[in-house]
Amino acid sequence: MLTVDARGVFPIAPTPFEPDGRLDWTSLDRLIDHYVAAGADGCTILGIMGEAPKLEADESLALVERCIKRAPKLPFIVGVSAPGFAAMRALARASMEAGAAGVMIAPPSQLRTDDQIVSYYAQAVEAIGADIPFVIQDYPLTLSVVMTPGVIARIINDNPSCVMLKPEDWPGLEKISALRRLKTEGKLRRVSILTGNGGLFLDFEMERGADGAMTGYAFPEMLIDVVRLSREGRRDDAHDLFDAHLPLLRYEQQQGVGLAVRKYVMKRRGVLAHDAQRKPGNALSAAAKTEIEYLLARLARQDARARLPGVL
Amino acid sequence: MLTVDARGVFPIAPTPFEPDGRLDWTSLDRLIDHYVAAGADGCTILGIMGEAPKLEADESLALVERCIKRAPKLPFIVGVSAPGFAAMRALARASMEAGAAGVMIAPPSQLRTDDQIVSYYAQAVEAIGADIPFVIQDYPLTLSVVMTPGVIARIINDNPSCVMLKPEDWPGLEKISALRRLKTEGKLRRVSILTGNGGLFLDFEMERGADGAMTGYAFPEMLIDVVRLSREGRRDDAHDLFDAHLPLLRYEQQQGVGLAVRKYVMKRRGVLAHDAQRKPGNALSAAAKTEIEYLLARLARQDARARLPGVL
Amino acid sequence: MLTVDARGVFPIAPTPFEPDGRLDWTSLDRLIDHYVAAGADGCTILGIMGEAPKLEADESLALVERCIKRAPKLPFIVGVSAPGFAAMRALARASMEAGAAGVMIAPPSQLRTDDQIVSYYAQAVEAIGADIPFVIQDYPLTLSVVMTPGVIARIINDNPSCVMLKPEDWPGLEKISALRRLKTEGKLRRVSILTGNGGLFLDFEMERGADGAMTGYAFPEMLIDVVRLSREGRRDDAHDLFDAHLPLLRYEQQQGVGLAVRKYVMKRRGVLAHDAQRKPGNALSAAAKTEIEYLLARLARQDARARLPGVL
Amino acid sequence: MLTVDARGVFPIAPTPFEPDGRLDWTSLDRLIDHYVAAGADGCTILGIMGEAPKLEADESLALVERCIKRAPKLPFIVGVSAPGFAAMRALARASMEAGAAGVMIAPPSQLRTDDQIVSYYAQAVEAIGADIPFVIQDYPLTLSVVMTPGVIARIINDNPSCVMLKPEDWPGLEKISALRRLKTEGKLRRVSILTGNGGLFLDFEMERGADGAMTGYAFPEMLIDVVRLSREGRRDDAHDLFDAHLPLLRYEQQQGVGLAVRKYVMKRRGVLAHDAQRKPGNALSAAAKTEIEYLLARLARQDARARLPGVL
Repeated sequence: MLTVDARGVFPIAPTPFEPDGRLDWTSLDRLIDHYVAAGADGCTILGIMGEAPKLEADESLALVERCIKRAPKLPFIVGVSAPGFAAMRALARASMEAGAAGVMIAPPSQLRTDDQIVSYYAQAVEAIGADIPFVIQDYPLTLSVVMTPGVIARIINDNPSCVMLKPEDWPGLEKISALRRLKTEGKLRRVSILTGNGGLFLDFEMERGADGAMTGYAFPEMLIDVVRLSREGRRDDAHDLFDAHLPLLRYEQQQGVGLAVRKYVMKRRGVLAHDAQRKPGNALSAAAKTEIEYLLARLARQDARARLPGVL
Repeated sequence: MLTVDARGVFPIAPTPFEPDGRLDWTSLDRLIDHYVAAGADGCTILGIMGEAPKLEADESLALVERCIKRAPKLPFIVGVSAPGFAAMRALARASMEAGAAGVMIAPPSQLRTDDQIVSYYAQAVEAIGADIPFVIQDYPLTLSVVMTPGVIARIINDNPSCVMLKPEDWPGLEKISALRRLKTEGKLRRVSILTGNGGLFLDFEMERGADGAMTGYAFPEMLIDVVRLSREGRRDDAHDLFDAHLPLLRYEQQQGVGLAVRKYVMKRRGVLAHDAQRKPGNALSAAAKTEIEYLLARLARQDARARLPGVL
Repeated sequence: MLTVDARGVFPIAPTPFEPDGRLDWTSLDRLIDHYVAAGADGCTILGIMGEAPKLEADESLALVERCIKRAPKLPFIVGVSAPGFAAMRALARASMEAGAAGVMIAPPSQLRTDDQIVSYYAQAVEAIGADIPFVIQDYPLTLSVVMTPGVIARIINDNPSCVMLKPEDWPGLEKISALRRLKTEGKLRRVSILTGNGGLFLDFEMERGADGAMTGYAFPEMLIDVVRLSREGRRDDAHDLFDAHLPLLRYEQQQGVGLAVRKYVMKRRGVLAHDAQRKPGNALSAAAKTEIEYLLARLARQDARARLPGVL
Repeated sequence: MLTVDARGVFPIAPTPFEPDGRLDWTSLDRLIDHYVAAGADGCTILGIMGEAPKLEADESLALVERCIKRAPKLPFIVGVSAPGFAAMRALARASMEAGAAGVMIAPPSQLRTDDQIVSYYAQAVEAIGADIPFVIQDYPLTLSVVMTPGVIARIINDNPSCVMLKPEDWPGLEKISALRRLKTEGKLRRVSILTGNGGLFLDFEMERGADGAMTGYAFPEMLIDVVRLSREGRRDDAHDLFDAHLPLLRYEQQQGVGLAVRKYVMKRRGVLAHDAQRKPGNALSAAAKTEIEYLLARLARQDARARLPGVL
């Protein structure tokens, strides 16, 4: 079960598909194995990047079960955001029965006021049950819902089953500091903070008080090493490694296109058999593929030259 | 099967619930009977007003089947809007197998450009199959998607299985005229136009070329009579009847609260056993109930006095 | 100076233009005279409906001065909403020097959280000066900013120069009740509440605790009489008069088109010489004009028949 | 006068203020001198980053005049976006009379459909006059208006006075390619494309067909050198220089905070006397300042070590 002490890196897993749109179970197994081998501390499936809304209900559950069966010791967080609480509850409870560690809930885009957001999470907890540990996803850029540190604190304090925050506000560094300050001041209990936003500010997020990362960059090894180096106090080493990856990481950070880039790189690395998305999906242009190849070549060259402190 | 020649009134059905949140099948039967007795030409279920996202997938299908079994001759349109095409396809195909006449599809709120909207409907048709007649729901106020007449025409002309438009843009009178003009000019094939928007402009929508109404006003009899009177050319009679109901109809038109008002009136009329909504729902305040009672009393008095041309 | 005790009707004035786009000063004089003769308690100029952003800064001020000179005893509220505080301050201070009674401030559409909204009003007061009485405009449908009763109460309690609220949330009846309840409970000082929203719920808004109306319906006489009848406790008479106007009032309530309808009716009534809008504006179609004429004819007939309790 | 052949870098100038909010004319002169010395090909003032809405109308014009007087040979583009066409016209015409090279127009956030966007630019051109060269600003992330390549092409082809596009869609690489393809296919005349978006993709934007950059990164020298290196075909050198700056450039790219970062760095570099913003502004936290200093130190170290191909 997920707790407030979770730390490290929980990669956001893409969902592998065959070119014809069927789930690619073999690649899924290899992907999970890859995360385990890289030293991931957990894994998040059926997130926004996981093409979750394209799956039928029984496919979603089958995917959850397959992942857990493949890596029974890895804590899995299941994205259960849904337009209604019936579907959210069904997937949340079934996932926990299958052995998931917790669930992640994003607010629906029509929420506006502080009270609406707080109420929504109260209703969600009532729907799924207060016994399921859950993660707040704070992602205004995509979800159009803006949560202040005060609102996040209210949700955390109101709901004991809230154990983690995934902040991906933009900008977000001050928000992490504000939340950690609230904790220091005794106004907020501790929760785990694993940051998203494609990792674009991971170097400084760690220094602001994050416990790690939850994002889908195609080299999870880098995320894991940056988090480790940062926690060991090796600031320059952490930044050196991060900066070496920044050109590619930034390229992946393009809204909409990002998933195609990640699947392409993961295919290039031999993790996924295909870079297909289930329809409707984004395809990479020839120019984009050339750009990615150029970025990969530069990254390899830099690794060879600089003996980066982490595994490339 | 729904065709481009559909006319008249397809009430949007609320979904009846027991106070504890279970589906109230008895009230559902009575509701469908009420529509048939009132002379409805069809019925739309699982629309935005039908609390559809609160139902689990098997509940939705059970509701579709129950309705069709209760009134096998009534054409049912099933709302299948969903955040992903997998769920949309599943409900659409199962509903048609159960005997539905067609489905209704609303665009997701993130669509912005003309091309995005046109592509979305192309993808939806590919997902559900081109053999299922479908209705475009054009409801910017709630969905945040703005479709010009030109975009609607592109969707209609691109997809032969599009048989109906439910316009509820606001304002919308000129849009109906523009679409009918495109048809007159030979640039657009005929589709059925049944208007929504709570019926707030039904009096003039009929005169602009609508074929009828698809909305959930708690006195579907009025909608049916206004449509009939308007088609018979009895303009003043149509407006007299409409205007008598306008104070209540306007009251029902309050976003969010409207469903609670409708269920309350339908309970008062003996159609529903309860006015409950499945959580999370809106409850009426005591003040609101008093206001509705006042409006109902005024409506009854006016009916007694003026011998309204339609059935109250 | 505007105070928390303001009551009655403050019509929102349209800005009269010549067909070539110049300000029509003669019609403006006649319009102000018309409001005075009808018994208006004040007048709001340069509101959203007043085409304010189409005016240059010196035109805006000239309009303010002309109005005040024409009716020196009528309290004028000046809309000073602007994308920046420099322009807001300039117009606010110049208007007050010219003799205005107060200003109205709408929140910019990018505000989301409770704190952002509260901060914005604090900054606005700092910009214009705490000596200028101001009105909060709460209009989510157009402005996309949602203020809870709690947020409105914070703004009122934080800023002594806030003397009035113009609620035009939709729905809004419960919000008025909530604010009046906060006052009764001693959590909120009294401010004047004059409702907008085109008057669509004026009948019940008065019963929920509003002090009057601030909206631009083309028959301000009706608004004035409904407010008076309601305050005299003549409930049925107030509703009878309101309901007689509701079909036209509802027609005016169409977003975007509404101003064209109002100018057309005011021209028909001899108040404005032209129904022109400064570019870019909305023109009425021939069909729309016919519909308005039909509504006006029905209204006149009903007035003749029913001896409506107020002046038509 | 700005033409379709404009190339290179037009820095977006911040507006320098004294700590008490007055315009800091001395720093403004030094800033313009800095751009000229760095080899800028032009300069854009009163952009979104320039705190333009905080200036009164006469301040804006005074700023335009001061800049032009300081660097009479540098082409200045003036941001004239405004909530109404009266203000837009006034600033545009006065700026051109003062010697500006052209103006930049961003679409207002309420625009949704393709036709609305195209109409808006037609109205804007009618308002300011077809003799003023103008730039389209395509910035969905901040403006909420999404323009397809087709819409941009319509605006360009409809309005001969459109000479430049500032694309800052995100992602935007494919959009630049699509527009250049339309030109190759003869469907679109040439316009200059200077990219924004903080420069986050400048390395590849140049390779996709951009003519340069229009953004406010605090080291305009880097932008100028990357554009030059890219045009000389020195791909690796361009990327080496770009990548060295990417950690800081990315840090500046934080919405809202970005301007504070830029002013801080420009103060550190001796260009601005103060990093003050006119109220309401964003202040940097102590933590943020430490982070910027760390990034600057790393940048200096890398420059010393690697002999970057451009001027640091």
